[in-house]
Amino acid sequence: MAKIDSVSPLAPAAFPDLPVIDGVAFAAVAAGVKYQGRTDVMLAKCVPGTTIAGAFTRSATRSAPVLDCQSKLGGASDEGAAILVNSGNSNAFTGRNGQLATDAIVQATASATGVPAARVFTASTGVIGEPLPFDRITAKLDELNGALSADAISDAARAIMTTDTYPKGSTASCEIDGKTVQIAGFAKGSGMIAPDMATMLVYIFTDARVDQATLQALTTKCCDTTFNCITVDSDTSTSDSLLVAATGTSGVDAGGNPDFEAALNSVMLDLAHQVVRDGEGATKFVEIEVTGAVDDASAKVHALSIANSPLVKTAIAGEDPNWGRVVMAVGKSGAPADRDTLSIWFGGIRVADNGWVSPDYVEADAAAHMKSDHIHIHVDCGMGTGSCTVWTCDLTHGYIAINADYRS
Amino acid sequence: MAKIDSVSPLAPAAFPDLPVIDGVAFAAVAAGVKYQGRTDVMLAKCVPGTTIAGAFTRSATRSAPVLDCQSKLGGASDEGAAILVNSGNSNAFTGRNGQLATDAIVQATASATGVPAARVFTASTGVIGEPLPFDRITAKLDELNGALSADAISDAARAIMTTDTYPKGSTASCEIDGKTVQIAGFAKGSGMIAPDMATMLVYIFTDARVDQATLQALTTKCCDTTFNCITVDSDTSTSDSLLVAATGTSGVDAGGNPDFEAALNSVMLDLAHQVVRDGEGATKFVEIEVTGAVDDASAKVHALSIANSPLVKTAIAGEDPNWGRVVMAVGKSGAPADRDTLSIWFGGIRVADNGWVSPDYVEADAAAHMKSDHIHIHVDCGMGTGSCTVWTCDLTHGYIAINADYRS
Repeated sequence: MAKIDSVSPLAPAAFPDLPVIDGVAFAAVAAGVKYQGRTDVMLAKCVPGTTIAGAFTRSATRSAPVLDCQSKLGGASDEGAAILVNSGNSNAFTGRNGQLATDAIVQATASATGVPAARVFTASTGVIGEPLPFDRITAKLDELNGALSADAISDAARAIMTTDTYPKGSTASCEIDGKTVQIAGFAKGSGMIAPDMATMLVYIFTDARVDQATLQALTTKCCDTTFNCITVDSDTSTSDSLLVAATGTSGVDAGGNPDFEAALNSVMLDLAHQVVRDGEGATKFVEIEVTGAVDDASAKVHALSIANSPLVKTAIAGEDPNWGRVVMAVGKSGAPADRDTLSIWFGGIRVADNGWVSPDYVEADAAAHMKSDHIHIHVDCGMGTGSCTVWTCDLTHGYIAINADYRS
Repeated sequence: MAKIDSVSPLAPAAFPDLPVIDGVAFAAVAAGVKYQGRTDVMLAKCVPGTTIAGAFTRSATRSAPVLDCQSKLGGASDEGAAILVNSGNSNAFTGRNGQLATDAIVQATASATGVPAARVFTASTGVIGEPLPFDRITAKLDELNGALSADAISDAARAIMTTDTYPKGSTASCEIDGKTVQIAGFAKGSGMIAPDMATMLVYIFTDARVDQATLQALTTKCCDTTFNCITVDSDTSTSDSLLVAATGTSGVDAGGNPDFEAALNSVMLDLAHQVVRDGEGATKFVEIEVTGAVDDASAKVHALSIANSPLVKTAIAGEDPNWGRVVMAVGKSGAPADRDTLSIWFGGIRVADNGWVSPDYVEADAAAHMKSDHIHIHVDCGMGTGSCTVWTCDLTHGYIAINADYRS
């Protein structure tokens, strides 16, 4: 039986040393929503002037807190903002009571922090379909508000974990007009991970000054090639939410600055990769690069078809360079493909060339690459210039153990 | 470690007693294409007058024999027909050599049987991307032709097995104008199974007289609610082919007869269910019924999203009535859904009602149903009259063992 309580073998060596983001303070508390003996609610409070952008699951069964956040995104920025997140219960598929619970939490957060309810963003993550004992959360809000600290971002990252085996944080900075702009963020997620708008819960903070419309456009753009390009199991959560908060406290206007975009993108990509590395049961981090497709959208369809194929994912778990299964996944994807112009590389080793096994392919070479814990599969469609890279993990006995052997 | 060489626990008690179909003879032989110590090539020969209809994978990387069959479907029926199938090697993704191998087999079959090449339908199933040693097959064709027998249909069914743990056969008959029309068929398949046109290899024979256009329309229609409504692992093969041959030897014109359609449909549904029951690692046969969708197509999208969800399939393996994962799968499917009109039943037990857990739901009741090896999940969308039923199996350690622990 696979061990399921240990830390993922693909985990980073340590949680990164995240900088203080001027204008944001954090707190975490143990409210006993479901878990015992750990923190499970976090509060982040941002100064007046903070702009907030976001991306959310498009699931038709998305949760009340997701709907609530979506309705508030365009709001005014001169009154600050608060983010309140609980783990252990997703408050999803909880009918009318879902909105009642969300409203109660929003109101209690507004009262405790002095931030208007229209600027309070909440999220809940955990089991679906059980009533959220929101009174356990509202009872802790004064304590949370009193504990707010600029140094507590790692506590916040830990409080939102569910089946994660490690907390996920990332940071980047850039120089604009001789001044430094800081970005720091954290994420949770390891199962029910498939890209659609945003996946999982992600919170990113920066002291840059960016107007809301620009921040939203930037968030959507970066999401597209980071969180929307990962998958663990093709299953999309009902609660996925990503928020980016720009406090403006650096006094540096970063809207439209390419270095800021690159820095924000690097934080989002790093967090997205960390989510894949914590994929349930994962033993291999897998990068799937598709080139030569008729367009970028087709390349993404092929890449995700490969990344979500149980037969490809089990072959990788078995360290089998089974390129026939990659051919199968390209063929079934529905995007344009031509069998006889398809070429495939495993770890840079060309295994198939224009529709057939490469004449100089030696399976032992590709098999050696498959023993690595970072697998690279490259498919060239030989049709055009469309390209996309996605990231996933393998499908192992550990995934079955986590999701079948133990009741959730 | 899961046993993977035993017969599926969901297998029928025995291979059915299939009737002789007048006008068709069968033979099987051990050609050593890949497997040793078993038959791996089968020949079926049909009398002049036989009409042939078919359905094939739409994979963009489909194999040379699939393309060859598709080009021949509309052909004349007055010269008989032959079907030649090998297991062990799929002759898929074999470049130009794939067509050369197919041509060689077609020509040898034509020479041995006296059936014109344009009426020889072939298929190959097994490993992808390896050159097919077609000379081992062509060397056996005279032996096969000499061994043709009306009684050998079960030998043919066994010769086309790959990872199947049991041969799959089915029969039905109907009375038309006081005469009996017989239908008998067989199938193979247990992994890389997802509906798209046809899946797997399926051969069905009848002594009814049905013109080709009518037989094709009937085949396509029946396929839609049988083979196109099953999935084992969401992965679509490069070789899937279904052929229906109507010899006309009964002298009974069955075109447009509803009893004939029902009989043909029952054979196809039975074979489709047998494929699911032999799904790699399967321990549960799962029926997923979606009603109340905006239309039938939307119902099918929801049903397949549930059937292909790794989290739903592992929950079933774990005998967990985890209806939250069903909600998730409906939400992510992309078809219209309204969270607050969704109702869900497990084995007839209402677990969720209009968007929340049913007030009189007792988990022990649903948990008891989950211990059965035939699971029934019913989702009503509460939006319209669209409906669809699909069939799948659970996702277990056995699937991982078959596809990851051992090199294929």
